[in-house]
Amino acid sequence: MQLGMIGLGRMGGNIVRRLMKHGHSTVVYDKDPKAVAALAAEGAAGGRSLQDFVGKLDRPRNVWVMLPAGRITEAMIDELTKLMQAGDAIIDGGNSFWQDDIRRGKALREHGIHYVDVGTSGGVWGIERGYCMMIGGDKAVIDRLDPIFASLAPGPGDIPRTVGREGRDARIEQGYIHAGPIGAGHFVKMIHNGIEYGLMQAYAEGFDILRNANIEALPAEHRFDFDIADIAEVWRRGSVIPSWLLDLTASALAKNPTLESYSGFVEDSGEGRWTVNAAVDEAVPAEVLTAALFARFRSRKDHTFAEKVLSAMRDGFGGHKEPQQGPGPVQQNAPDIVKPKA
Amino acid sequence: MQLGMIGLGRMGGNIVRRLMKHGHSTVVYDKDPKAVAALAAEGAAGGRSLQDFVGKLDRPRNVWVMLPAGRITEAMIDELTKLMQAGDAIIDGGNSFWQDDIRRGKALREHGIHYVDVGTSGGVWGIERGYCMMIGGDKAVIDRLDPIFASLAPGPGDIPRTVGREGRDARIEQGYIHAGPIGAGHFVKMIHNGIEYGLMQAYAEGFDILRNANIEALPAEHRFDFDIADIAEVWRRGSVIPSWLLDLTASALAKNPTLESYSGFVEDSGEGRWTVNAAVDEAVPAEVLTAALFARFRSRKDHTFAEKVLSAMRDGFGGHKEPQQGPGPVQQNAPDIVKPKA
Amino acid sequence: MQLGMIGLGRMGGNIVRRLMKHGHSTVVYDKDPKAVAALAAEGAAGGRSLQDFVGKLDRPRNVWVMLPAGRITEAMIDELTKLMQAGDAIIDGGNSFWQDDIRRGKALREHGIHYVDVGTSGGVWGIERGYCMMIGGDKAVIDRLDPIFASLAPGPGDIPRTVGREGRDARIEQGYIHAGPIGAGHFVKMIHNGIEYGLMQAYAEGFDILRNANIEALPAEHRFDFDIADIAEVWRRGSVIPSWLLDLTASALAKNPTLESYSGFVEDSGEGRWTVNAAVDEAVPAEVLTAALFARFRSRKDHTFAEKVLSAMRDGFGGHKEPQQGPGPVQQNAPDIVKPKA
Amino acid sequence: MQLGMIGLGRMGGNIVRRLMKHGHSTVVYDKDPKAVAALAAEGAAGGRSLQDFVGKLDRPRNVWVMLPAGRITEAMIDELTKLMQAGDAIIDGGNSFWQDDIRRGKALREHGIHYVDVGTSGGVWGIERGYCMMIGGDKAVIDRLDPIFASLAPGPGDIPRTVGREGRDARIEQGYIHAGPIGAGHFVKMIHNGIEYGLMQAYAEGFDILRNANIEALPAEHRFDFDIADIAEVWRRGSVIPSWLLDLTASALAKNPTLESYSGFVEDSGEGRWTVNAAVDEAVPAEVLTAALFARFRSRKDHTFAEKVLSAMRDGFGGHKEPQQGPGPVQQNAPDIVKPKA
Repeated sequence: MQLGMIGLGRMGGNIVRRLMKHGHSTVVYDKDPKAVAALAAEGAAGGRSLQDFVGKLDRPRNVWVMLPAGRITEAMIDELTKLMQAGDAIIDGGNSFWQDDIRRGKALREHGIHYVDVGTSGGVWGIERGYCMMIGGDKAVIDRLDPIFASLAPGPGDIPRTVGREGRDARIEQGYIHAGPIGAGHFVKMIHNGIEYGLMQAYAEGFDILRNANIEALPAEHRFDFDIADIAEVWRRGSVIPSWLLDLTASALAKNPTLESYSGFVEDSGEGRWTVNAAVDEAVPAEVLTAALFARFRSRKDHTFAEKVLSAMRDGFGGHKEPQQGPGPVQQNAPDIVKPKA
Repeated sequence: MQLGMIGLGRMGGNIVRRLMKHGHSTVVYDKDPKAVAALAAEGAAGGRSLQDFVGKLDRPRNVWVMLPAGRITEAMIDELTKLMQAGDAIIDGGNSFWQDDIRRGKALREHGIHYVDVGTSGGVWGIERGYCMMIGGDKAVIDRLDPIFASLAPGPGDIPRTVGREGRDARIEQGYIHAGPIGAGHFVKMIHNGIEYGLMQAYAEGFDILRNANIEALPAEHRFDFDIADIAEVWRRGSVIPSWLLDLTASALAKNPTLESYSGFVEDSGEGRWTVNAAVDEAVPAEVLTAALFARFRSRKDHTFAEKVLSAMRDGFGGHKEPQQGPGPVQQNAPDIVKPKA
Repeated sequence: MQLGMIGLGRMGGNIVRRLMKHGHSTVVYDKDPKAVAALAAEGAAGGRSLQDFVGKLDRPRNVWVMLPAGRITEAMIDELTKLMQAGDAIIDGGNSFWQDDIRRGKALREHGIHYVDVGTSGGVWGIERGYCMMIGGDKAVIDRLDPIFASLAPGPGDIPRTVGREGRDARIEQGYIHAGPIGAGHFVKMIHNGIEYGLMQAYAEGFDILRNANIEALPAEHRFDFDIADIAEVWRRGSVIPSWLLDLTASALAKNPTLESYSGFVEDSGEGRWTVNAAVDEAVPAEVLTAALFARFRSRKDHTFAEKVLSAMRDGFGGHKEPQQGPGPVQQNAPDIVKPKA
Repeated sequence: MQLGMIGLGRMGGNIVRRLMKHGHSTVVYDKDPKAVAALAAEGAAGGRSLQDFVGKLDRPRNVWVMLPAGRITEAMIDELTKLMQAGDAIIDGGNSFWQDDIRRGKALREHGIHYVDVGTSGGVWGIERGYCMMIGGDKAVIDRLDPIFASLAPGPGDIPRTVGREGRDARIEQGYIHAGPIGAGHFVKMIHNGIEYGLMQAYAEGFDILRNANIEALPAEHRFDFDIADIAEVWRRGSVIPSWLLDLTASALAKNPTLESYSGFVEDSGEGRWTVNAAVDEAVPAEVLTAALFARFRSRKDHTFAEKVLSAMRDGFGGHKEPQQGPGPVQQNAPDIVKPKA
């Protein structure tokens, strides 16, 4: 079937390519004409303007928006709303906040336009591996779009089947789910990313402890000099903690065991934050997911104001002067020392 | 080659079975004669007593101890020390504390007895899947035992090879590692389990937020009624968070989506605790691994004393009286309310 | 000067009493006529209805709303807006969400009505001790209301003056602050409560560790049987951690060292949650404030779904069966044990 | 009475001064002869050597050791043991690990020498304010030393008495406690410091959120520019969160609202770490105390290895390249953006 794609970045462009490979026809648009031209050269119909793009789509139109979440996606959906008609469908495949979906869905419903939110996972590997999709919206339009989802999904592959799923929704084992009404898709994707942060931080902390197992502050007989790349690799095989994230880590460590090419600044996108907010709204304790988010926040600061407040208090009650450089793990500025004589 | 096994529980028994399947000869001992008889019926030589067991082993002897860590393992190694001779080897395959290994290794060295610590992962699946082994000790004795490790390890299977590992230690891709000197094996296994706790808690919190997405305290238009079993399954396919732990979760949820058969008490073994201690010793922040451990501690208490202290303070400054039952997510005992008139 | 008070619960009623003691005239209203009658008997003018209440106030009117935050306060302010006129002022002294203040302030400005948000701290002790007030709004109206704030504030008392504050805003040392524009008052109060949660949890955890210092799982020579009430008391005197919260704790423990009258359920009001949300919005790591909130969430549940997910995984990979009752701190269900013979 | 003091740093020297002010006679020793001379000039008897020091003490001797915990204190106690006799007493007033106390107490008991562990709180203010002392040891020797403790303690001062303490141990209200057998003093002091870390971090995080309330990433209408020094001061007066730590913070902020003179590196001494270890041993969840410790660990690193592992994973699954500089709170490196036309 036909799909229109707006936003031809890493994700949007590859989705178009995967759809074309599966025999779908695509119409594409991006503010960057070169991005449009590149995909036109691969077989997509290119829109010279948003109007031109919309005009090239058969009715009822199906337009997938793959733009950065927030104001950019919002503005684009506003524009599209003016150009589209009853029966058309807008699919937001980006990382939008699920409450924005609910608001937009309500507004579009008044124009008879369908809204579908798709949490799309798979990153740069999706074009080959397929995309795991978590979808929210009305059944009718999601059924209409099924050929698109079926082509984008990874399919069952050689992943072992879970016992006890006989007779259940067959789409799940293809790698996509109609998770609920509008907003449900991005809610589930949000939790997916929240978990992702937690898993990543768990591995990261474990490797950090291994990496620091030879510091001088430890007693000499308790120090170890581990080969972290080998440990990551061996855990992929028969342990309790294999995962795709571990595969990627083992791969990075095989190339560069010290990871010195990475600055240590770690960005976060909205999903980790919204996950914490959702936990707070539901009164669900979510220590690990929150700690994983806060570790990223901290990674992006030289020092927090909080730390200066701590030092000011220590100075206040104990006259403690902090060093300007990290002192290593034990306190140095201790009172005068009596060295016992022989 | 020949291996003696002490401790024929779930792990020890299956290790013996896997070794026999691979053509090794085994001698077994357990305080329970029935356990010995069962394995003898499968082809192992059974020891009627510890002395008898030791006597049945060819020199230099290789004895794998697979007992609960702590006093039981310690006592057994003390006994064995008296019965064994220079050149013999004791392999502690249980979950011992790595500093105990270092101490024991030193003591045994004085008798000329080798000590090898093996962190053995794989659980009930190991007999089929093979065991991931993290090994500490001297090179010579670990090389001597290689046929044993090679048979117990899972082998490369169909797990994709990591690019860039050409020319590196080939044992890693078989699923076992000589991690360092005595203690290194259990240290790495400890971190493995620490990470395991963190990963588990990350998934658990995510599913908890999904599960509580329909509570009444939320605005009606923001509630979702998710099919958690389907979500666990779909994440196995093309998402960023597939893992063996997710496979197991999907499997459990397919059988019982509410998991009502589980009490909610969650035990911990020593490794999660020692991981936190190691992080503290190294001054490595390990929020996620620690939070995962504390969540298990909390799961085993009706209420903490800490919580009562909180309520006592709230009573003290605000006259707040806590309900005897969980109040749901928002505070109820608020001051008198003026209902506005129509 | 004259103040109208709506909401005569613990806080509102006592504020009226403190104002009358300081010579102010008050007009009061509550949906409960008995509450109105009680304060009328103490000298306040009582409103028979909201209209009557508003009618009894001199213009420009100053009305303090002291109701539960959320829908109840919102509805009352909507009602009042209809009855009040340009130049009048509404003071929200409850625990409203600061973003609600900003929205309401904007709406009231169109009617020429002033809006002031006051975070009011002091609890049941405020009538004697005075109230710490964190105030947001326009300078002109806050200056107009100054006699009210000055009477409610605790005044300097015998609290030692901070060196270096000469020449700064004198109101601060009286115990009230004009923190910024509309919303600033409740924002600062929100952080106050967020910190309060963190402080409380720090003490609570410390006492919990003291309380559990004699459990059987510890080696006999490492157990202590502490008198927690005495310890709380001694820390009030010369240590680094004296505080009002510690005073209250020592007081509660002196009466009841086991705190057995408290169920262990701990409520939370909105401020702790909004503090976490603010930290997330600002990308400030706030582990302690968040952990304190989550501990309260957890206190209100028998078991979390997360815990059942953990057990399901443990069952999946290790065949571990959790006990139905808390097992104490160490794992019990270990493999068969060989008891060494003498 | 007479007390010998070893270690004349900030704490030891001031303890001697306070004792002399209260009419006690003191004998002092330090490896630095100048420190000895200084106190000799104030009236103490100075020891030229450790032998000389011990020789100047009346029997039974009472020697207070006030040295950095760990190897230095250990070595000194070993030396002293050789020079002292049955009936003498060694008081360790430093920050020793409580399990070291138990071990030492056992060893000294064989020589008939008493051992007393005193957790001494009060910092640089102790000389005026008095010291809160948490004491472990045998009743007889602690009774013998009571005149010393009574003089060092702050006494009741003007701190309000806790209702319900009539008839209880009167020493508590003087500010010192016989907490239990050897080790109990340092255990209680350890928890005191653990709580201290938690309280400090709670304030610090709260001020950090206030400080970042005006960052550009926030919507303009939601930003506040707070006067943090004023807020700290106002909270001292009538709020729920006054404390000595808040007094010190208000004082530091009055001098320097940005705290720019502090580097942001925050040291930790052993007690915070041992508190976490104790919580782990007792299976008590102590999230806040642990998070406070980990925040200090993190403050002393430019970047953790954990953070590089996170970035390596993000690169692996999403091709995400982290910036070299902190990106502010929201993700910047998003896919190509379609700018909607006017």
